[in-house]
Amino acid sequence: MLSMFQTKPDLIVHSKDPLNAEPPLAHLRENFITPQKFFYVRSHGNIPKLDPARHRLSVTGMVTTPLDLSMDELRTRFSKRQVTAVLQCAGNRRADMQQVKPVSGDPWAPGAIGNAEWGGVAFADVLRAAGADETRTLHVAFAALDDIDIEGEQFRFGASLPMAKALSSDVLLAFEMNGDALLPEHGFPLRVITPGYAGVRSPKWLASISVQDMPSDNHIQQRDYRLVPPHITKDTVDWSKGMTINDMPLNSAICEPAAHATLKAGKTMARGYAIATERRVVRVDVSINDGRNWSQAELEPDSDAPWSWVFWQAELDLPAGEHELAVRAWDSAGQTQPVRPDDTWNFKGYLSAAWHRVPVTVS
Amino acid sequence: MLSMFQTKPDLIVHSKDPLNAEPPLAHLRENFITPQKFFYVRSHGNIPKLDPARHRLSVTGMVTTPLDLSMDELRTRFSKRQVTAVLQCAGNRRADMQQVKPVSGDPWAPGAIGNAEWGGVAFADVLRAAGADETRTLHVAFAALDDIDIEGEQFRFGASLPMAKALSSDVLLAFEMNGDALLPEHGFPLRVITPGYAGVRSPKWLASISVQDMPSDNHIQQRDYRLVPPHITKDTVDWSKGMTINDMPLNSAICEPAAHATLKAGKTMARGYAIATERRVVRVDVSINDGRNWSQAELEPDSDAPWSWVFWQAELDLPAGEHELAVRAWDSAGQTQPVRPDDTWNFKGYLSAAWHRVPVTVS
Repeated sequence: MLSMFQTKPDLIVHSKDPLNAEPPLAHLRENFITPQKFFYVRSHGNIPKLDPARHRLSVTGMVTTPLDLSMDELRTRFSKRQVTAVLQCAGNRRADMQQVKPVSGDPWAPGAIGNAEWGGVAFADVLRAAGADETRTLHVAFAALDDIDIEGEQFRFGASLPMAKALSSDVLLAFEMNGDALLPEHGFPLRVITPGYAGVRSPKWLASISVQDMPSDNHIQQRDYRLVPPHITKDTVDWSKGMTINDMPLNSAICEPAAHATLKAGKTMARGYAIATERRVVRVDVSINDGRNWSQAELEPDSDAPWSWVFWQAELDLPAGEHELAVRAWDSAGQTQPVRPDDTWNFKGYLSAAWHRVPVTVS
Repeated sequence: MLSMFQTKPDLIVHSKDPLNAEPPLAHLRENFITPQKFFYVRSHGNIPKLDPARHRLSVTGMVTTPLDLSMDELRTRFSKRQVTAVLQCAGNRRADMQQVKPVSGDPWAPGAIGNAEWGGVAFADVLRAAGADETRTLHVAFAALDDIDIEGEQFRFGASLPMAKALSSDVLLAFEMNGDALLPEHGFPLRVITPGYAGVRSPKWLASISVQDMPSDNHIQQRDYRLVPPHITKDTVDWSKGMTINDMPLNSAICEPAAHATLKAGKTMARGYAIATERRVVRVDVSINDGRNWSQAELEPDSDAPWSWVFWQAELDLPAGEHELAVRAWDSAGQTQPVRPDDTWNFKGYLSAAWHRVPVTVS
């Protein structure tokens, strides 16, 4: 794998410490299953170096049988489960909102997303082994081992899931990604995988789980990763009134051609992805004239993997001149994406999901 | 009930034969549970007059034990189930799309929707009693008893559901609405209730059910109630390429004040509904200046009825002049409604769900 890393374009690094990086889009579009080395990395703190032989997972709180498991015990005591699922950052495509008005956070292009085959055990099996109270209004809080420093506040990463989601069959405690052990930056030796939800609900370097009657009290859960109205600023925000970001919205992106590419007049193939999380992508439209006309993209055959993205391609006939390509997806409830980033702008730049636009020069 | 009907404003009748009618919006907003007499009526043909003592339901096709049940047998053989759920026409709010460009169909305002307590039996229980093949890619086709004439084609109503939806616990074969027998116009003596889906997937006057490997071949399923791209017309449509309308999109409406109302300057309470079908409504915004500023509406306490609508209200402070009020809802995946009806325009006027705008004069 190392040689592949060296011969392919590197990730685009937004920040080295914490490490935040995403693949170039053309590269992202090459593989329906994203290789680990080219999967976006979103860190809030350091990347812990953990010894799998000594790593333990505890399950406590509103349970009848608290657990304290080694990695070997986790693997042998529970059945192996595999789920193919997209993970994406709540800030994926933030750069588009940044162009409207400044937002805080890294300027992610549409590459803060990837699709992988996750291997591990069903989280529901572990919760049941612990005799967790399965009341659907409860919460499952995670504590991880990465050390974070946000504006002088020092803490370890924590976040939570509603019990109803935690019990759903595709949520995993994962130790494999595409058949290999997780790389350190993806949470080695153990992470949560919560299909459909923002990446922040899939904590890496997982150390403990608590079943409780309140969401996690961690900074990450309480004072970040919430959607607030457009008039709210960093100075006026009342985090308790924001919507906790769990399910991700319908989204799509043009991966090829690249923004500001120079193309020859005539036929060009555009390629990209679309994602509808718990819904299905039913149509992808591409326009070369700001949405006055749309042509329907061809969708790659459904992979029977409900949490995957959809790859699309569309043959365009481009006359000479300056053009802006645009893509929008439609979901199985007949919803489509916002026209402009300012239709859903918020000061944190979350859930940026307007038509993705790519300016090109055709000669 | 009859006297109530006579002393309240009548339904707004778009067509008498077939009967298509909706309540005035202020009236719709009075009751969280919509009375039968004031529930919108969408008919494709006649309203059959059926004798409940002679009415029978058959279940055939890919089943091990075909059923042929009287209404009494249906009631006594299966447990009673109650579900509170919104039904809405796929063409609700079509009038807004009509203002962009002509569309076919009745010009529904936002009143082609209602919320009721449905009583009946779980459809899954009946399918299991028949030994239906539960393969999730199969279809359950319904045949009803209303006679339809569309452009010279005469047929009886038929439609289908994917097996996976048919088996979900809240889909009913219903004989009661708000504790009473169904009124004739709502499907007496038996109808389907498919929460979250367009009303067309909740056939009235239900006579038979077939488990099969293809969707219904009825006109209603194959050549209507599909979402097509904006450039498609009645003359160019290839129905096989349209998206079958099942799940309904996020929507909201201002019920009070009424369009073109004259109001006094100062505080005014706006009221309306919002609906996110299988998701949750997390926020409702109201603007008096075309979306430059938004105020957050107050949502009535969650009723623990996941398929219900949400009632909202917002106190507005209106200066003298001409204003256009607008509302938009947000769902639990961070999606919101399109800004303009032409963002999702289609020649059938389906799934009209842009910001709902109400012009008012303030003096």
